[in-house]
Amino acid sequence: MVSVLKRVLIGKPIATAEEGHQRLKKRVALPIFASDAMSSTAYATDEILIVLLIQAGAGAVAFDKLVPLAIVVAVLLVIVILSYRQTIHAYPSGGGAYIVSKVNLGPLPSLVAGASLLTDYILTVAVSVAGGVLAMQSAFGFDSSVRVPFGLALIALLTVANLRGLRESGALFAPPTYLYIAMLAILIVVGLYRVYFRDLGPIPVSRLLGDAHDPEEVKELMEGAKTLSLFMLLRAFSSGAVALSGVEAVSNGVQTFRKPESRNAATTLAIMGGVLGTGFLGISLLASKLKPFRGENDATGIALMAEHVFGGKNAPFWIIQFATFGILVLAANTAYAGFPALSSIIARDGYLPRQMSNRGDKLVFSNGILFLAAAAALLIIVFRGNITALIPLYAFGVFTGFTLSQAGMVAHHFREREPRWRLSTAINGLGAVCTGVVALVVVVSKFSKGAWIPAVLIPALVLAFRAVHSHYAKVRASVQVEPGYRAQRHTHTVVILVGSVHRGVLDAVQYARELAPDRLIAVSVVTGPEEQEALAHAWEAYDIPIPVHTILSPYRELSRPVLEYLDELDAEMQDDVMTVIIPEFVTQWKTQWLHNQSAFALKARLLYRPNTVVTSVPVLVAGKHDE
Amino acid sequence: MVSVLKRVLIGKPIATAEEGHQRLKKRVALPIFASDAMSSTAYATDEILIVLLIQAGAGAVAFDKLVPLAIVVAVLLVIVILSYRQTIHAYPSGGGAYIVSKVNLGPLPSLVAGASLLTDYILTVAVSVAGGVLAMQSAFGFDSSVRVPFGLALIALLTVANLRGLRESGALFAPPTYLYIAMLAILIVVGLYRVYFRDLGPIPVSRLLGDAHDPEEVKELMEGAKTLSLFMLLRAFSSGAVALSGVEAVSNGVQTFRKPESRNAATTLAIMGGVLGTGFLGISLLASKLKPFRGENDATGIALMAEHVFGGKNAPFWIIQFATFGILVLAANTAYAGFPALSSIIARDGYLPRQMSNRGDKLVFSNGILFLAAAAALLIIVFRGNITALIPLYAFGVFTGFTLSQAGMVAHHFREREPRWRLSTAINGLGAVCTGVVALVVVVSKFSKGAWIPAVLIPALVLAFRAVHSHYAKVRASVQVEPGYRAQRHTHTVVILVGSVHRGVLDAVQYARELAPDRLIAVSVVTGPEEQEALAHAWEAYDIPIPVHTILSPYRELSRPVLEYLDELDAEMQDDVMTVIIPEFVTQWKTQWLHNQSAFALKARLLYRPNTVVTSVPVLVAGKHDE
Repeated sequence: MVSVLKRVLIGKPIATAEEGHQRLKKRVALPIFASDAMSSTAYATDEILIVLLIQAGAGAVAFDKLVPLAIVVAVLLVIVILSYRQTIHAYPSGGGAYIVSKVNLGPLPSLVAGASLLTDYILTVAVSVAGGVLAMQSAFGFDSSVRVPFGLALIALLTVANLRGLRESGALFAPPTYLYIAMLAILIVVGLYRVYFRDLGPIPVSRLLGDAHDPEEVKELMEGAKTLSLFMLLRAFSSGAVALSGVEAVSNGVQTFRKPESRNAATTLAIMGGVLGTGFLGISLLASKLKPFRGENDATGIALMAEHVFGGKNAPFWIIQFATFGILVLAANTAYAGFPALSSIIARDGYLPRQMSNRGDKLVFSNGILFLAAAAALLIIVFRGNITALIPLYAFGVFTGFTLSQAGMVAHHFREREPRWRLSTAINGLGAVCTGVVALVVVVSKFSKGAWIPAVLIPALVLAFRAVHSHYAKVRASVQVEPGYRAQRHTHTVVILVGSVHRGVLDAVQYARELAPDRLIAVSVVTGPEEQEALAHAWEAYDIPIPVHTILSPYRELSRPVLEYLDELDAEMQDDVMTVIIPEFVTQWKTQWLHNQSAFALKARLLYRPNTVVTSVPVLVAGKHDE
Repeated sequence: MVSVLKRVLIGKPIATAEEGHQRLKKRVALPIFASDAMSSTAYATDEILIVLLIQAGAGAVAFDKLVPLAIVVAVLLVIVILSYRQTIHAYPSGGGAYIVSKVNLGPLPSLVAGASLLTDYILTVAVSVAGGVLAMQSAFGFDSSVRVPFGLALIALLTVANLRGLRESGALFAPPTYLYIAMLAILIVVGLYRVYFRDLGPIPVSRLLGDAHDPEEVKELMEGAKTLSLFMLLRAFSSGAVALSGVEAVSNGVQTFRKPESRNAATTLAIMGGVLGTGFLGISLLASKLKPFRGENDATGIALMAEHVFGGKNAPFWIIQFATFGILVLAANTAYAGFPALSSIIARDGYLPRQMSNRGDKLVFSNGILFLAAAAALLIIVFRGNITALIPLYAFGVFTGFTLSQAGMVAHHFREREPRWRLSTAINGLGAVCTGVVALVVVVSKFSKGAWIPAVLIPALVLAFRAVHSHYAKVRASVQVEPGYRAQRHTHTVVILVGSVHRGVLDAVQYARELAPDRLIAVSVVTGPEEQEALAHAWEAYDIPIPVHTILSPYRELSRPVLEYLDELDAEMQDDVMTVIIPEFVTQWKTQWLHNQSAFALKARLLYRPNTVVTSVPVLVAGKHDE
């Protein structure tokens, strides 16, 4: 049943063939790598405003601080992009934070980077999905209770698509990404033109009202004027810093670019940085003029501003909302490629369970995809699909990854001493220090708002990585033997588990006899003397040439009496290997659950019995091949 | 992990010993068998009133009809009890509806009876738990949203207690049952005394108000005077008829009574009927005078009347509420004994999956208990713990069981022609006709209120029973062979699945060689040439005396390439039996999941491969025995 369901959802297996190594033009690569980073412009400005207006109560001052904060974020963006251009040139085969810190800083930092990145991917899915849902909520005005089911449906859709082997292609990524960039540009240009040359004023407070707010409350918020503490300013900055999430993507995928790969990748990264920085600054500038206020339950700033600038819920408004939804869903999708790939690398290094590195039928790392989906779904449920609640969890992992990656680059430059290594060291050093400070600012300023979660989770993950690694190492060591090791010749006892006498039992007896064991005995659990006699009678009638031992178990218990009997047999002979043969009925999948349940429980217990081999002899039932 | 959790929740296994065959005195047996039947007095009167007042809008007329309806129910009770006294004498070893109809009416009626009874047991749990929760709600006045979690907690408690092997004992059942009977008697006697000799009037409308009702609405209900249609009267009667659920319990347990069993059981049944009938009539009479009105969200009629009669929420009030809670929980508990016992009998007859007849470590039918708990929990969730919503589902199964049981008795008397068989036939015939008519009345009058659910479920269950039975029969037939059948000698190919070379592999190779197969080959799946070379190197270094075949699978796929290779091997030889040996790492339970996941998937697929035997050779890892 599971396998049929799997086929319907996932489709036919893909034959084990080489993955296509198509090289990408810059204009195709840009949307694939930029969607994640660009998508943060959809919510970063709103999140700054929520901190300043609601949490800090700064009122009108909030809008004055928006542009300065955006400029600081943009400067940080420039530093990070310059840093990553170094990484691209140094690691043309792909330089994610995990690999760069593993090569240059050693295992522990690489595990911290790995844990940060995995946490990040999960949050990318949760935050982007929540943002996408909010974009639709802004357009259609549905109730907030729809958020969780809508978000879970999106995650389910992305999960099935990726289990089916969805590839990140230009055809998929280009239209929504370019459309979003274009619409953002139009909104900013038209908006600023109308503000500066047509005297467009702020959005009237009456238009800001969602169901959740009464006019007085909103007015109070907009006019409030508590002094803005440095702490609150830093917290607001931390919200803006999420705009940088995703800029590292290009450095992971250098080898997918056309030759010269590094130069093309570096150029793409620069273009992406330019578009992202301009977009974020532009939106923040426009917001400082139009004063959109989302609150935690209402329309996004972009939706409010689009409606105000374009004069209503007209075509441009709808296009911008759908493009926002589209790019956010794509951003979530990038994590579906990144998370399984990274976890498979970590699993191959022995820090995660080996099954994370197994590819499924579609050559995707199914376990990684399923884990990511489950974790993101959990976040959506716990935080009720509320993006503002999720944001404080987000930036810490991003900037921890940045810091370790750049610190690794500094070590790299010191070691390699390539031409102009001092300049390179200075750039990456600046990057490492800045992003490290930001990571610290984020965790401190948002600790109580949720940043404690990654601050606890990432070290816990690192400990888990090490525990898994040491377990595998211990197992490897414990089964390691020197060449020359010889397994001993054993005494072979074969025990056949018998219910009633049928073809399967006779076949199993024949099979067991051909194994030429030293002792061969059948064993049967009966509930009473009548069953015992019936069995003895059948044994004689069928002339079965091996002895049968019956165990009386009035309540049809199977496992315990059989195990006790095996112990008895074992005690009779030194150096005994016990092979337990269990005939198992094999029927169609839809009736398979009606069989072998007791045998299954017994097998699970026998696995833990020393020197015991379990052999399943299938009893094919007629009709099985009708399937 | 599962097994540790199981130990903590369920306790140590009980050794396979005979169940105690202690014989019960009548005064000990009465509470055990009567709690289920008696407990229905806690809600049956309320449910009649809800139909008459809310659904029919009969106003004051409702209270006039209460006593006549109760008398009809009491007459029906007398008929059913007379009928069951016949069954007790005819089947001293226990005569449940399933067995009586199987013996006398044949398989199909017995399956209908079985399905009805199983449905019933589930509803007994759901209804009794909902009633128990309501008794507490009436006392403490908590919010209705607490009902579902409270109900689920009770079900969880009952489930764990029964999985732990809770036995139905007098010590458990006597105190709440006798306390409830005593308190009910006091309430009726004191109440009627105050009504008739102290002019106690009806409960004032202002006291009937719960949060859910406004005074006008209640007043309107109490004074409404729509004409009472026959249909509504029958529907009200159907609600009252649930009072009869559980009276059949004694007939199932005749052999637990002291000698002479049948006479003692029949006496106990008569006493139970007397107490139940008197209690139900008394409460209904009192209610017709005090006019309590529960509505669907407020205090029960018994709670309202107790407060009114005893003059406040004083000690007698609290005792009656806790006694009500106690007897309802016990009533639910009786189903925890009945359901698993019946389903195990049906499973032994081959109509339910065999695992329903397996006893767990505590000698209880764990699967039956878990299934019952899950089904009852589902009902509590779906119907929001609302007893009034559950009642329409209840009586149909009860009366279908009665009907088939009595019809079976009629057939029995015709066949056996014992002394005075004509009288016995008349009694059981009357019972069968009356209960059959009631079953019909219930299903028709409450069809739209939920009675359609058992009306659909019971036939569906019967179809499922037959499907399971025919599947087992087909399987039995397909593996049946005549004495003289000889399994053929096969060519034995043994394939050992190898990852890297370690002690487990060397042991497995030795084991395989001792099986003396015709062909022996190791097979290994490698992801690239380096792995291939490393394996070849190790093979040589360890001087392993069998050939190894490597399969290149760049993406670490295991199952497909191995199966393809087995097909190749198979094609080389006619009449080949393929034994696949899989060395499996065995570690402590808490790390076991880190191993053998791919092997597990492969084993599942190999099970379906014809002529393929799967042998698991355990590789015990050092430290395993630390556990």
